[in-house]
Formats: sequence, C-alpha cells, structure tokens
Amino acid sequence: MEKIVEQGLLYDFYGELLTDHQKKVYEDAVYNDLSLVEIAEEYDISKQGVHDLLKRCTNSLEGYEKRLHMIERTDRIRRQLDELKMAASDKELKDDELRSRVLETIESITEELS
Amino acid sequence: MEKIVEQGLLYDFYGELLTDHQKKVYEDAVYNDLSLVEIAEEYDISKQGVHDLLKRCTNSLEGYEKRLHMIERTDRIRRQLDELKMAASDKELKDDELRSRVLETIESITEELS
Repeated sequence: MEKIVEQGLLYDFYGELLTDHQKKVYEDAVYNDLSLVEIAEEYDISKQGVHDLLKRCTNSLEGYEKRLHMIERTDRIRRQLDELKMAASDKELKDDELRSRVLETIESITEELS
Repeated sequence: MEKIVEQGLLYDFYGELLTDHQKKVYEDAVYNDLSLVEIAEEYDISKQGVHDLLKRCTNSLEGYEKRLHMIERTDRIRRQLDELKMAASDKELKDDELRSRVLETIESITEELS
C-alpha cells in the first residue's frame, strides 16, 4: 500500500518526464491496479517486459526526485503552511504575533523556493 | 542579457539533470562567460561541438520546464507570498482581514503545490 502511494506521488511530480508508452503502462499498474499479466496482454509484451519497464520507470522517477527534490521541498513548504494556518485560525494569538509569524514563514518558504 | 538570466534560471532549477560534462561546459558558458573558443580549448573539442552541446543543454533544460513547470509555479507562489508580505506589513489592515488573507493565500499556494 505504502509503495503504491509513493509510486503515485513520484508519478504526480515527475510522470511528465516519462514517454507516453511508459506513462500508460505505469498508470495501468499503479492507478488502475492491473496485474502484470493483464498489462502484458494489453500491450502485447511479455510479463517480464512489463516488469522491467515498470522497474525502469520507478528508477527513473526516483532518480528525478534524488536530483530535483521537488517532493521533499513541497512537503516542507506544505508543513510550514499548515503551521501558519493553525496560527491564523488561533483566535488567542495576538495580531502582532501573527504578523511576525506570517513574515517568518514567508521568508522561510521563499528561501525554500530559491 | 535576458537570455543569460533565463539560462541561469533554467540551470538553477534543472541543472542537476544534466551530465557532469554538460554541467561544466554550461557553467563555463553561462556563469563564467567564457567564449566558445576558450571552452573548445579547455575540453579539447571543436567550437562547433561546444555550440552544439550548449544548444542541446538549453533544449533539454527548456524541455524540463515545459513538462514540469517548476519555474512558472515557483514564480506564482513567490508573487502570492509577496502580496501576503505586504498585507502583513500593512498596519492599516485589520486583524480579521489579515487572517482571511493568510488563509486564502495558504489555500491558493497549497493548490499550486499539488
């Protein structure tokens, strides 16, 4: 289960870098949950061929994350936004404090983006 | 000038996807401002070879942006953060209004990230 989530995440971020053929096979396996045999029949390739293709796709997507860190950075930004959201929803938090928190978060995310 | 800025930006975002050799040549041309002749001598390749390699690098970096839109998205997020920063620094803005602006911006950036 966790592996599928991770594969889906990698695909969400870097799927556009795969070829159309790779995309179709990967989507069938990860999103449509087809078996290797079903995919092999669909594209008229061997089961081993499907297995190798999927492995190559995953390696390739993992390689992009290793070099670009888009998932990692997005995750860090999202966590900071979540914290700020809580602060902005906290009626106990004073106006001035909220303003500093907003400015701090903006600075930190801006750094993350560059 | 603008072209160099753009090439630098593309390289900042996607440079890690080039090979080590491509990186070195690209950096020499874009950051160290070496001429084609100088680079050709340094790596013992023809001037035309350097030209072709640089062209391939730029095409490749542009291709990544066309498919992943990291620069475009980062730019949009940065603009939203700038606006929120102005709002947070505006002493005239009422507390409640700032809170709504914060929440709106967070929602919008979160959407941008997904």
